[in-house]
Amino acid sequence: MRFQPALDKIPAYEAGKPIELVVREYGISPEKVLKLASNENPYGVSPKVSEVIKEAVYKMPLYPDDSYKALKDALAKTHGVDAKNVIQGNGSDQIFDFATRSILSPGDKILQNGKTFSMYSIYAGQCGAETIQTNSELHDLDQFLDLYKKHSPKIIFICTPCNPIGDALDQSDVYTFLQKISPDTMIVLDAAYMEFGKTRDPKKEVQASDIISKFPNVLYTNTFSKIYGLGGMRIGYGIASEEMIRAFYKLRPPFNVSQLSQLAAATALSDREFVENYLKSNLKEMIRYEEFAKKKGLFYFESYANFITIKLDQAKLDSTQTFETLLKEGIILRNLKSYGLNALRITIGRPEQNDRVLERLSELL
Amino acid sequence: MRFQPALDKIPAYEAGKPIELVVREYGISPEKVLKLASNENPYGVSPKVSEVIKEAVYKMPLYPDDSYKALKDALAKTHGVDAKNVIQGNGSDQIFDFATRSILSPGDKILQNGKTFSMYSIYAGQCGAETIQTNSELHDLDQFLDLYKKHSPKIIFICTPCNPIGDALDQSDVYTFLQKISPDTMIVLDAAYMEFGKTRDPKKEVQASDIISKFPNVLYTNTFSKIYGLGGMRIGYGIASEEMIRAFYKLRPPFNVSQLSQLAAATALSDREFVENYLKSNLKEMIRYEEFAKKKGLFYFESYANFITIKLDQAKLDSTQTFETLLKEGIILRNLKSYGLNALRITIGRPEQNDRVLERLSELL
Repeated sequence: MRFQPALDKIPAYEAGKPIELVVREYGISPEKVLKLASNENPYGVSPKVSEVIKEAVYKMPLYPDDSYKALKDALAKTHGVDAKNVIQGNGSDQIFDFATRSILSPGDKILQNGKTFSMYSIYAGQCGAETIQTNSELHDLDQFLDLYKKHSPKIIFICTPCNPIGDALDQSDVYTFLQKISPDTMIVLDAAYMEFGKTRDPKKEVQASDIISKFPNVLYTNTFSKIYGLGGMRIGYGIASEEMIRAFYKLRPPFNVSQLSQLAAATALSDREFVENYLKSNLKEMIRYEEFAKKKGLFYFESYANFITIKLDQAKLDSTQTFETLLKEGIILRNLKSYGLNALRITIGRPEQNDRVLERLSELL
Repeated sequence: MRFQPALDKIPAYEAGKPIELVVREYGISPEKVLKLASNENPYGVSPKVSEVIKEAVYKMPLYPDDSYKALKDALAKTHGVDAKNVIQGNGSDQIFDFATRSILSPGDKILQNGKTFSMYSIYAGQCGAETIQTNSELHDLDQFLDLYKKHSPKIIFICTPCNPIGDALDQSDVYTFLQKISPDTMIVLDAAYMEFGKTRDPKKEVQASDIISKFPNVLYTNTFSKIYGLGGMRIGYGIASEEMIRAFYKLRPPFNVSQLSQLAAATALSDREFVENYLKSNLKEMIRYEEFAKKKGLFYFESYANFITIKLDQAKLDSTQTFETLLKEGIILRNLKSYGLNALRITIGRPEQNDRVLERLSELL
């Protein structure tokens, strides 16, 4: 059987190691495993959400309301847009999938940052498109502009704050850049970590309602996996012009988000206090990691997200070795070797979790 | 912005009306709404699954184990295959999506029955492929063979038992047909309703392990939405050769099934008693609808699934009108007008649910 030739070139996505794997492979009991590898919410999920889901298990047999009205109305209200500007996804991943498939053909190009979320390129590759990227670690918009002019990409991905580095662009710089881009080029603005960014510095805030009204070629994406603590429930969303949303709907499978996931997400939006407490703790604990790195003389990227990326001294330590040493002890961090960085990315945990990590890192680094 | 031209031709999928919509539009209280429109399990879900999910809400923040080892091992054991022959999907819908995208290019063709699940054609359309179909209501394999020779489709979809008619092929007829098809043509065997079919007539049973070992070009698909009562949880799977599964994995987004969904599915497999009781009740209650139709002199299709399709007398009644009359009373059935049939498809409910439907149909038909 001959499969699409484009499939040959697609690399596999490397996810953070799950707790189950460490339990299986190293025989560590689950309660001793500490996973700070996938930027999940260390406080879990709002207790309101847990209660609602426990009471809603009787809904599991029923297909969801395929209009997702309750969820889309709640998102529209949260973001000050119309429900017609919103589409829900099985994770924001599915929104990237809609975006790439709606517009890319074999031979087309996308443009992205040198270090960024690896799925953009994988989805583009599934469409037979080529990925052009800057050679910088931080988003360098001058370089983006040069590459845009040279390659005429169909989509430009901007991730701010950006995973796996944690840097964020000022809103004013994003807008200045967008003014130079043709309205026929789609801009995907991945705002998965936006709330962390604006908590640290209000200049970093890019609002969905404002950006899509000024730039109708922008697709704003966000997720319930981070501040809302619903990574396991697979739910994200896109906000864009009605025209773009209509095109994505042509690619949306029916019932693309589970009954319990949409309910968990809509409920999560109603507990702002849970989110605010997490954002406060995240910033406070981030400073501890920064101080640790400074004390050790290690380079770290100033982070506007819920993780910090610390480079190791190449002459002394290899990030893969350090990662594996910790893994065997039940501490799961993210090794960034596959991103070309001799660095570890650490999700900012709860204070006692960070105590454990910082203690071991003090000994190892 | 110029979207893919293929998108222009894609029709929207028409789902069964959700309870929420009837509540919204007709002001009927949810507990008075009876939905027998989407072939959901009228007994809900196994109590074991409900218990496990209530206790697992703390897992919502964590991304699933992306290897889905526990679920795939359970499915492999159930079907007597290796876990390497299994891929999980966000509904079996996602497996159809993998299948079409792995092999179809613009201009290619798929072949399917005249009346069948509408998503095959929609997914093929997203790839720019054309749908060839028989002109018969029941699967007519001679006609399939003629069209196969004439059009050289890249994929042949066989749905047995078939939605929305309920007919099923004998295993021996399927095998005889497959012997005449090139191993380069992918065969998707959609077995969503297989357990209902084999309960009514063992000759209808097609086993995943047997068919994929004899015909490596077959993709066997199944779902947790029907006998296991997990329609709202969006989980299905495909069983095929390792080569085919590997190709699909290139298109699989990470974490494609939610944490709670994979847990619900793995647990559902362990409660066989729940399934057996449902299968027994389904067959018993099916007979009541058949007797009703006979008494009224209405044509019905003998069904090997958990629904029955009854044709209305075109001279006297229009299925759309009858459907709407019932909808306003809070009874949701499926109008098959969009399939070109003046017929209603009724999911077989629990005895007391069928009492309500049969009573009203007696008055109306």
